[in-house]
Amino acid sequence: MANTTERRSFWGWGLAADEPTQADRDKLAGQLAERYGVEVNAGPTPTIDEIDLRPTRLTPPDSIAAFCSTDTWDRAEHTYGQAYPDRYKAFNRQFDNPPDVVAFPSSDDELAAAMDWCSEVGAVTIPFGAGSSVVEGTNVPDDRPTVTIDLRRLDQVLEIDETSRAARIQGGALGPAIEGQLRPHGFTLRHFPQSFEWSTLGGWIATRSGGHYATNHTHIDDFVESTRMLTPAGWWESRRLPGSGAGPSPDRMVIGSEGTLGIISEAWMRIQRRPSYRASAGMTFPTWEGGCEAVREIVQTKTWPANLRILDPGQAQADAGLDGTETLLIIGYESAELAQGDNIHTAVEIARGHGGLIDDEAIQVSGGDAKPTGRGGAVGAWRDAFIGIDMNTPVSLGLISDTFETAITWDQWPEFDAVVRDRMTKVLDEVCGGGRLSCRFTHVYTDGPAPYYTFVGMGSQGSELTQWNEIKQAANEVLIDAGGTVTHHHSVGRMHRPGYDRQRPDLFAEAYLAAKRAVDPQGLLNPGVLFDT
Amino acid sequence: MANTTERRSFWGWGLAADEPTQADRDKLAGQLAERYGVEVNAGPTPTIDEIDLRPTRLTPPDSIAAFCSTDTWDRAEHTYGQAYPDRYKAFNRQFDNPPDVVAFPSSDDELAAAMDWCSEVGAVTIPFGAGSSVVEGTNVPDDRPTVTIDLRRLDQVLEIDETSRAARIQGGALGPAIEGQLRPHGFTLRHFPQSFEWSTLGGWIATRSGGHYATNHTHIDDFVESTRMLTPAGWWESRRLPGSGAGPSPDRMVIGSEGTLGIISEAWMRIQRRPSYRASAGMTFPTWEGGCEAVREIVQTKTWPANLRILDPGQAQADAGLDGTETLLIIGYESAELAQGDNIHTAVEIARGHGGLIDDEAIQVSGGDAKPTGRGGAVGAWRDAFIGIDMNTPVSLGLISDTFETAITWDQWPEFDAVVRDRMTKVLDEVCGGGRLSCRFTHVYTDGPAPYYTFVGMGSQGSELTQWNEIKQAANEVLIDAGGTVTHHHSVGRMHRPGYDRQRPDLFAEAYLAAKRAVDPQGLLNPGVLFDT
Repeated sequence: MANTTERRSFWGWGLAADEPTQADRDKLAGQLAERYGVEVNAGPTPTIDEIDLRPTRLTPPDSIAAFCSTDTWDRAEHTYGQAYPDRYKAFNRQFDNPPDVVAFPSSDDELAAAMDWCSEVGAVTIPFGAGSSVVEGTNVPDDRPTVTIDLRRLDQVLEIDETSRAARIQGGALGPAIEGQLRPHGFTLRHFPQSFEWSTLGGWIATRSGGHYATNHTHIDDFVESTRMLTPAGWWESRRLPGSGAGPSPDRMVIGSEGTLGIISEAWMRIQRRPSYRASAGMTFPTWEGGCEAVREIVQTKTWPANLRILDPGQAQADAGLDGTETLLIIGYESAELAQGDNIHTAVEIARGHGGLIDDEAIQVSGGDAKPTGRGGAVGAWRDAFIGIDMNTPVSLGLISDTFETAITWDQWPEFDAVVRDRMTKVLDEVCGGGRLSCRFTHVYTDGPAPYYTFVGMGSQGSELTQWNEIKQAANEVLIDAGGTVTHHHSVGRMHRPGYDRQRPDLFAEAYLAAKRAVDPQGLLNPGVLFDT
Repeated sequence: MANTTERRSFWGWGLAADEPTQADRDKLAGQLAERYGVEVNAGPTPTIDEIDLRPTRLTPPDSIAAFCSTDTWDRAEHTYGQAYPDRYKAFNRQFDNPPDVVAFPSSDDELAAAMDWCSEVGAVTIPFGAGSSVVEGTNVPDDRPTVTIDLRRLDQVLEIDETSRAARIQGGALGPAIEGQLRPHGFTLRHFPQSFEWSTLGGWIATRSGGHYATNHTHIDDFVESTRMLTPAGWWESRRLPGSGAGPSPDRMVIGSEGTLGIISEAWMRIQRRPSYRASAGMTFPTWEGGCEAVREIVQTKTWPANLRILDPGQAQADAGLDGTETLLIIGYESAELAQGDNIHTAVEIARGHGGLIDDEAIQVSGGDAKPTGRGGAVGAWRDAFIGIDMNTPVSLGLISDTFETAITWDQWPEFDAVVRDRMTKVLDEVCGGGRLSCRFTHVYTDGPAPYYTFVGMGSQGSELTQWNEIKQAANEVLIDAGGTVTHHHSVGRMHRPGYDRQRPDLFAEAYLAAKRAVDPQGLLNPGVLFDT
């Protein structure tokens, strides 16, 4: 299947052509060696001829063979997502449990034929968008014969309803493909997760992806008008409606199903006119607590800023070059129709009441006939950092770097933060002999923030996976112990199961599993995700 | 149980003390006789000694007897909701299928004891909030022994978290009780369905009630932070979280469950500071189409007005005394923190662009230090009409008056409206020899409106139920045929089943039914609602 699109890396993030060079890696190795005072070995990146896969145990029948692959590259590429253990194992040439077959259907009929064959031969069936799961959501779960169904050929915006501001989009469309097809019509989906380039509409819906908007409509959930999903028992398709109160929402059972019920082949999505009015401010605070209180007051006034992201001093230093003592708050408003100057000034005044600092002339306002005002500053630096991350190199050099994210009500904040920091700092000390932990809010609600923690520590060569696992388990536990959710938008997958199993109501688990069995009686779809079977 | 609260009417809306007098009814009878040119007989309202109930078939054990009743009044009062057939039958002393026992638990333990007993004896179990279902959601479905569990004694706001703006509220709390307990703290839930006085938090959540806000967060769904529900298999309780992406939402399976999974005993709800800033405008349009286009443009600019309700000429005449040619649009903004003058002027300008008329001095703005500006006019008249409806008298005089509501994407509007009016006008002609049909939008989304139709026709004495049924079935059919939802916020109950069964995805029905069976294996909870069993 490799010749149908530009080949993706089989071991790392992005295209093979964009893999880091040895020079890039040597340079970072030198920096890390200096920073941590340890030897860092930038051994060569994997090549496909080094990869030895278990022979495939399935032979697709003639009826579907034309869009199925048992090629080594394809199977290796679909063995892992982008979780830390995935990247570690892939870099270290460990592909112990690859799928047997990768199917690339390019129509609903081909998709149905592939799933029918899986049901017929009892093959585990893994829905695959673009493989950027950070929770082991697309990995082969056990030693049963497995087919991964990759939706990359279902990548079209099929219909645009300009009057209702909605579009019918296929499940396998990547972020840039969606935006590219909407842009000529003046529209945008405006769903920009950090994985934007390598994640798909179907993946976003299946995992309750968190997107562009920091307030009000934060998850993809709120933009779904209807869904079309193929299950082993057939098609599950909801009616296109702007709102409904007819029983429990059929879409809300699909949203967050993480591939356990079926494969989302398309959805009608609410889209937006491309914004032309913008207003933003990057404000610093002498204290993290003051900044958080500003965020709470701003979100509770319900002017619904598109951006309301606060970075603690460590995060602000790493992402925006601040001095390591200041907290940074980025506030942004946008609209296709209305000037946003009043909104930004209101929010800035609230933030100033909590110690927030910004010069009036640094507040940026643009759009309409008015001349743009204000200058960039911290906002621009932050934006560049957000999309410019190298996902491939650090893990290959022994750095243990990962994130965990949650949500918690305001009454538990900042105590929740103190508990998390205390526990995780101790764990980093124990496991890595120290490390860094920082926090930002990715999304904010009237009743609480969604804090996102980043940790970094240096691993010991050969022990990194064990070390990572200790840290990750501690994170899972502290989030649940302290009252949060085990994930706000990265989804459950296989990695968050221990915390998730404690968090969800037991009877809900039983009820949803019964629902799954109704449409997937053999339990073939993505076992291990959400449930053991 | 009657002496524990002021007694409610056993046959009509509200308290027994508020039942219409014979003089009121004679007056309306005279008006109807004149309007329709028929004889209208205002026969006397029912008295409890006229009601003859089937003997009860269940005897509550001593352990729960103290909060259970087999009293005639209690059983009659719980036989019906407030649907047209309910009111018709109750007025006509037809109580063929009453519950055998009504339980009034006042704690979670009593609630569990009541449900356990139902499971033990295999009694059909009907959750009952305040009995204002208009879709036969609380009626006894068949001839099996039946226990109705009335939550009126679980009526407390248990906790207020002022920091997060959330409150823990019991499922049986009526609208006024909730507001009464929040008001001293400066908060409000701001959920004001037309049934506000006689509906409960648990009922709102179970039925996906549509509330105060015409845009953005329209259903109760969006205000639910967590739920606590008792099922026959035990408690289902979700974690209190401002947002989460951990698997499919457990709450969204409860929201809209209509009593088929369990009884919602309490929920953490997002609450609001009481608004102090308000801005509103009542605008007239020479055409219904122009007004609807104005609504679309206003909602798509996302300033999220709390009110954005448009009334067609017939509705505007009935509710606000306009002349029957003009369309009326009510726009309202509100906030606890920010002045809303700019928002209302923006919306008014958009509406003027579509032919909307209002004098500048009629735009009302109030709050803060500024002197209130503007005068009332059409807005005040409309508000009085909304809450002043006499639910009891018309049906007792032979008038067939009811509503149906839906939602549809903008691309189908106004063709959808034309199809509905054409079909329903013909049906009213055939069935009642004419009648009136009018429309308003109760809620509006960026991708479409939620139209709400009211119909009125004069029935033939003794045939009213058959006539109503013909009209209602036609409404169900035309909504589904034309692409809408069978209900936007009245819920499915038993009445909307024919349309609902066509509307929902078949596999979703199978999956949700399997989920129900996991927590209600005997199928005792509210059978007939959503599903046959």
